[in-house]
Amino acid sequence: MTKTNKLLAFGAVATGAMALTTPAAAAVSDESQFIFNTLLFLIGGFLVMWMAAGFCMLEAGLTRSKNVATMCLKNIGLYSLAGIMYYLIGYDLMYGISDDGNQFLAPFSFFWTPDDAAIEAGDFSAGYSASSDWFFQMVFVATAASIVSGTLAERVKLFPFFIFVIILTGIIYPIQGSWEWGAGWLDDMGFSDFAGSTLVHSTGGWAALAGAILLGARTGKYGPDGRVNAMPGSSLPLATLGTFILWLGWFGFNGASQLAMGSAVDAAAIANIFANTNAAAAGGVVASILLAKVLYKKVDLTFALNGALAGLVSITAEPLTPTIGQSILIGGVGGVIVVFAVPLLDKLKIDDVVGAIPVHLFAGIWGTLAVPLTNSDVSFGPQITGILAIGAFVFIVSLIVWMVLKMTMGIRLSEEDEHEGGDYAELGMEAYPEFGKGSQTIM
Amino acid sequence: MTKTNKLLAFGAVATGAMALTTPAAAAVSDESQFIFNTLLFLIGGFLVMWMAAGFCMLEAGLTRSKNVATMCLKNIGLYSLAGIMYYLIGYDLMYGISDDGNQFLAPFSFFWTPDDAAIEAGDFSAGYSASSDWFFQMVFVATAASIVSGTLAERVKLFPFFIFVIILTGIIYPIQGSWEWGAGWLDDMGFSDFAGSTLVHSTGGWAALAGAILLGARTGKYGPDGRVNAMPGSSLPLATLGTFILWLGWFGFNGASQLAMGSAVDAAAIANIFANTNAAAAGGVVASILLAKVLYKKVDLTFALNGALAGLVSITAEPLTPTIGQSILIGGVGGVIVVFAVPLLDKLKIDDVVGAIPVHLFAGIWGTLAVPLTNSDVSFGPQITGILAIGAFVFIVSLIVWMVLKMTMGIRLSEEDEHEGGDYAELGMEAYPEFGKGSQTIM
Amino acid sequence: MTKTNKLLAFGAVATGAMALTTPAAAAVSDESQFIFNTLLFLIGGFLVMWMAAGFCMLEAGLTRSKNVATMCLKNIGLYSLAGIMYYLIGYDLMYGISDDGNQFLAPFSFFWTPDDAAIEAGDFSAGYSASSDWFFQMVFVATAASIVSGTLAERVKLFPFFIFVIILTGIIYPIQGSWEWGAGWLDDMGFSDFAGSTLVHSTGGWAALAGAILLGARTGKYGPDGRVNAMPGSSLPLATLGTFILWLGWFGFNGASQLAMGSAVDAAAIANIFANTNAAAAGGVVASILLAKVLYKKVDLTFALNGALAGLVSITAEPLTPTIGQSILIGGVGGVIVVFAVPLLDKLKIDDVVGAIPVHLFAGIWGTLAVPLTNSDVSFGPQITGILAIGAFVFIVSLIVWMVLKMTMGIRLSEEDEHEGGDYAELGMEAYPEFGKGSQTIM
Repeated sequence: MTKTNKLLAFGAVATGAMALTTPAAAAVSDESQFIFNTLLFLIGGFLVMWMAAGFCMLEAGLTRSKNVATMCLKNIGLYSLAGIMYYLIGYDLMYGISDDGNQFLAPFSFFWTPDDAAIEAGDFSAGYSASSDWFFQMVFVATAASIVSGTLAERVKLFPFFIFVIILTGIIYPIQGSWEWGAGWLDDMGFSDFAGSTLVHSTGGWAALAGAILLGARTGKYGPDGRVNAMPGSSLPLATLGTFILWLGWFGFNGASQLAMGSAVDAAAIANIFANTNAAAAGGVVASILLAKVLYKKVDLTFALNGALAGLVSITAEPLTPTIGQSILIGGVGGVIVVFAVPLLDKLKIDDVVGAIPVHLFAGIWGTLAVPLTNSDVSFGPQITGILAIGAFVFIVSLIVWMVLKMTMGIRLSEEDEHEGGDYAELGMEAYPEFGKGSQTIM
Repeated sequence: MTKTNKLLAFGAVATGAMALTTPAAAAVSDESQFIFNTLLFLIGGFLVMWMAAGFCMLEAGLTRSKNVATMCLKNIGLYSLAGIMYYLIGYDLMYGISDDGNQFLAPFSFFWTPDDAAIEAGDFSAGYSASSDWFFQMVFVATAASIVSGTLAERVKLFPFFIFVIILTGIIYPIQGSWEWGAGWLDDMGFSDFAGSTLVHSTGGWAALAGAILLGARTGKYGPDGRVNAMPGSSLPLATLGTFILWLGWFGFNGASQLAMGSAVDAAAIANIFANTNAAAAGGVVASILLAKVLYKKVDLTFALNGALAGLVSITAEPLTPTIGQSILIGGVGGVIVVFAVPLLDKLKIDDVVGAIPVHLFAGIWGTLAVPLTNSDVSFGPQITGILAIGAFVFIVSLIVWMVLKMTMGIRLSEEDEHEGGDYAELGMEAYPEFGKGSQTIM
Repeated sequence: MTKTNKLLAFGAVATGAMALTTPAAAAVSDESQFIFNTLLFLIGGFLVMWMAAGFCMLEAGLTRSKNVATMCLKNIGLYSLAGIMYYLIGYDLMYGISDDGNQFLAPFSFFWTPDDAAIEAGDFSAGYSASSDWFFQMVFVATAASIVSGTLAERVKLFPFFIFVIILTGIIYPIQGSWEWGAGWLDDMGFSDFAGSTLVHSTGGWAALAGAILLGARTGKYGPDGRVNAMPGSSLPLATLGTFILWLGWFGFNGASQLAMGSAVDAAAIANIFANTNAAAAGGVVASILLAKVLYKKVDLTFALNGALAGLVSITAEPLTPTIGQSILIGGVGGVIVVFAVPLLDKLKIDDVVGAIPVHLFAGIWGTLAVPLTNSDVSFGPQITGILAIGAFVFIVSLIVWMVLKMTMGIRLSEEDEHEGGDYAELGMEAYPEFGKGSQTIM
C-alpha cells in the first residue's frame, strides 16, 4: 500500500482496513480506530515538537560561542511564532483549498478552532480528532522554519529573522503545502511526497538559500585569495545531541505521516517506516564517514552528523515502499551528497553555517527524485514538476521578502556587532559567561 | 466536557463514553478501554519523568559553574527520593482520604502495592492499571520538588535540602493534594485545578519561597547600595535544552491529566489539551520577548525561557476549555508576569536563582484564577479559597520545616564554601574541570 | 504472570488474555491486539533508540575534552553499524534457531525483510508487525555495543573499534541472544532474563572487559607507586543528561520487553514494570549517595549517576515480579556494587573510563542472580549456567577478536596521539574549540 498525499490517504486506509475485516470479532471498532488515529498524531506530534530542541542544539553546537544564546533565542522564538501563525492563518490556508475547488490558493480564514460536536454526539466518522491533526501539522511547519535559522546564523538580525519566520510559516509554507497535502494541483498531477522531503525540508532549504545569498557570508569566512576559513562550532557534543534528537523525532515525522493507526495494515506500515527511517539515517552516517575518510584522510564528526540528517531527509519522501536495504542505500546517497555539497557551497561563497542547505535542500531533492525507484505508482515527471514548482515559488517569494526586509529594516548585523557576536549586540548576554568568549574578553 | 477533579473525572468519562456507544460495533470494549487508559498514564508518565531532566538542565545552565555538579546531584537525588517517599507513604496519604470519610487527612498507610487480582480474573472495571496511575502521580510529586532546588541553588546545603525534599514529597504535597485530587474538601467545594497550577507548581513555589526567605540571598547578590549584581548562569544552551525538555514533558503533564483515553471524546480532549498547552507556551515566549524588548531595549533569553515555562504553568489549571487563541493569551499573561516579577523579587531581596517563584508560584496563581474565564462550571470563590488554603498550608509548614532544619543541622553553606562553590565543598569535584572555574583556580 | 523468554512469551500472553475474555463485549479484537502489540514495540523501540543518545552524552561528559568529539563519532557510528549489521545478518542469526531445531547456532541468512502479505490479507495471527519486532530487537543490540565504547575511551583507535562493533552486533550478540530469546538451549533449561541483564548488559560488559585488558590503561592513569590518577570528565552536566536519557529509555527497554499490550493483563504488567524500573534506579541513586558519603565523606555525582544505571541494570533481568519495595532493594544493591567495584577495578589496573564494567557487567550478574528471589518459577542453577555460558562465550570470542585486531591493524593510539587526544589525531577537530583543550593549546 502506498500513499500519494496526506489528506486522501486517510480515507483510503480506513476503507481498506474495513474491507479486510469481514468477521466482526476481528475488526477494530470505529471508536477504537478514532482513538488509535488520534493517538498516532499525538505521539508523532510530540516527537516532531522535540525536533525543535534538536535543531536548537545542533545549531547552538555548530555556531561560535558569541552567537549561541542568539541561536537558542531564535529557535525557541521561531517554534513559538510558527505555532501562533499556523493557528492564525496557516492551517486554514493549507487545508482549505479543497473547500472552494481552487487548486492553487485557499480562501483566507482566521483563528482555526476545532469542532468536536460530532464526536460528542457519538459520530466518529471524522476518523481522528481535529486538534490532533492540527497539532501534527503545526509541528511540521515549525520544522521548516528551523532549517532557516541554521544557515543564516551569526550575522542575521533577530527581528528581521522573526518577521521572515512569520511570513514563511503563515503564508509561504501553507500555500505550497496546500498544492500537495491540501489536495491541490500537484496532488492531482500525481506528485508524491510522503512526509515532506520537498514540502518541508526543501522548502526550508530554499528559504535559507534565498536569505544566504542576500545576506552574504560572515566577515572573514572567505579570504580574498579564495581561501575558506574554518569557523568551528563551539560544542560538538551539543551538535551531536541535536542530531540524536532529530533522529528520534523523525520516527514521528515519518511514522505518523502514515496518518492512521486504526488497522493492522496501518500499524504494520508504520513499523516498516520506522525500520526504513532508521536504516536511511544509518546509511547516511556510514557513507559520510567512509567517504570523508577516503577523500580527506580524516573522519569528520560534522559530516557524520549531517550524513545522518541527510539520510533522514532522503527517505522522507518515501519511507514506506523501500526495503531496509534500499533505505540504507537511499540514505547513503544522502550522506554522499553532504560530503560533496558542503565544499561546493563554499566554492560558491554561500555561507551555510550548519550545512542546512546540503542536508535539507539537496538531499530533499534527491529523496523526492528517488520515490519512483521503489514506488511504482509514482513517476519522474510529476516528481520533477513538484520539485521545480515548489522550489521556484519558495525561492522567489523568499527572495522578495528578504529583499524587502533588507531595504526597510536591514537584515544584517553591523560589522562591529558581528565581531562582538549577536549575543552581546542583541541580547546583552553571553551563552557561556565563565568560559568561551566571555572568559577572555569581558569577565 | 470539562473536568473538575482527577479522581471523579475518570468515572464520569467512562460512563459518558459508554452511554454514547449504543451500537456494539462502534464501541470500545471494556478491556480496550483499560489498555488505552493505562497506556495514557504510561506515556504521560514517562514524559513527566523526563521533566526531571528538564529541571536539571535548566538549573545546571542557570547556575555558575562552581555549583553545577551539585545541581545535577540534587536533581537526580530529589527525583529518586520523591519516588521512594511516594511509595513509602505519599500515595496512600494523598488518595486514601475518601476511604475514611475524613476530608482533611487520610489514615496513614505504608508501602503501596498494586493488586491486580481482579484484572487477572477478567474484571476490568477498575478502568486502568493501578501501577500506571501510581507511576503518573509519582512523577508529579517529583516535579513539585524540582521547583525548590532551582530557587535555593548555590547556597543551600545538600543534606538539609534532601531532608526537606523527603518531607515535601512524603507529607506536605500529598496532604494538600488529597484535598483536591483525593476528593477532599476543596474538591467538594468546587475548586478546580486540572493538572496542577496550584497543587503542583504553586506548591513547589511556596516551599521554595519559604526556603529562600530563611536562607537569605547569595553573598554579594545584593549590594549595600541597593544594587543587584547579576550572577549569570554558566550555560544558556543547557538552560534552553531544559526548557524544551519541560515543554515536551508538559504534553504528558497536562494531556494525561485527562486520565482517560478509552473513548473518542477523551482522545479528542487530550488532543485539544496538547494544542492549548503548546499555544500557551508560545504565547509566553512571544509576550516575554516583546515586553523585555520594549522595557529594556534588549531581548533576554532567560526571560524567553521562563516565559515559555510561565505560559505552561498558566494553562495547567485548565488546558481543556480554552480555545487556542485564549490559550495564547493565558500563556502570554504568564510571560508578562515573569518579566515584571523577576525584578520585583530582586527589589524584595529574595534571591531566586533560576526564577522559579515567578514561573511556578505567580503564574500558577494566575492560571488557577483564570479557570473561570473559560470554564463556566468553575467560579472565582472556590479558586481563591484553594489558592489561599494550599498557599497558607504549604508556606507555613515549609517555613517550620526549614526553620527546624536551620536550627538543628544548618541549611546554609559557610561563606568560604559558598565562595569556593558547592561542588568543591560538598562533592569535591568540578562540573567542568578543564574550563569554567576549574581551569582558572584549581587545575 | 511471569515470562521466561521473549519469543515464547508472546504466545503465552495472547492465549492467556483470550482465555480470560469470555464475554465478547469485553474482549480485544485480534486486529486491535495486533495494533496494541505493534505500538508497544514502536514506543519501546524509540525509547531504546534514544538510549544511544544517552550513552553518547554520558561518555562525552565523562571523558576529557580532547576525546569528546571522538566519543560522539563512535556513538553515532556504532548505533548506525548495529542497525545495518542486524539487518544484514544479526536478526536472522538470533531468531532463526528454532527453524532448524539446532539449539546452538542458526543457519545463516542475509537481508532480513518483513513479509506483511498475511496482514494485508486480513490474517492477524502473527500478533504484531514483523518490522516492529525487528526495530525493537535492533535497538537492543545497539545498546550492547554502546557499553563497549565507554570503557575503552581515550585510547582505542577508531576503525578497529568499529570493526569490533560490526562483529559484536552481527555475530557475537546474536549467537548468545539466540540461546535464550531465540528459544535455544538456555531457554530450554529454564534460564530467565526478562529484558537483558545478562544478554545485553553483561554481554556489553564482557566485550568491554576483554578490550580493556588487551588495550591497557590510559597513559598516566596508574602511577608506578600504585597511585591512581583521577582523570575527571569534561562535563558532568552532559553525563547527568545522559543518565536521565538512559533512565527514560529504560522504560521502553524493560516495559516493551513484556512483548504484548493487547490485553489488560499485559497492560497492567507493563505498568508494574514501569514502577519497578523507576524504583530500582531510585534505589541505586540513594544507596550510592549514602554509601559514598559514609566511605569517603563526600558525595560523588559520578557514583550517583552510575548508581542509577546499576539499579536499572539490576532490575532488568526481572522487572515484573518484585514489589516496588523489593525493586528499591534490588536496585540499591546495584548502587552498592558500583561504589565498591569502581575502586576495585582501579586496583586491578583495569582502566574503565566511564565505569561501564561495574554498571553493566557486575550489576548485570547481580540482577540475573536475583531473579529467583522474587520469581518462584526460576531457580539459581539455570541462572548461574546462563551467566557463565554467556560470559565465557562473549569474553573469549571478544578477546580473540581484539587480539586479532591488535596484531593486524593495532587497536591503540600512539602515545603521542593519545597525549594530543583522539579528536586531534583521528578527526582533526576539537569538541570545544573555544574552550577546553583547544583554547589552551591550539587557538
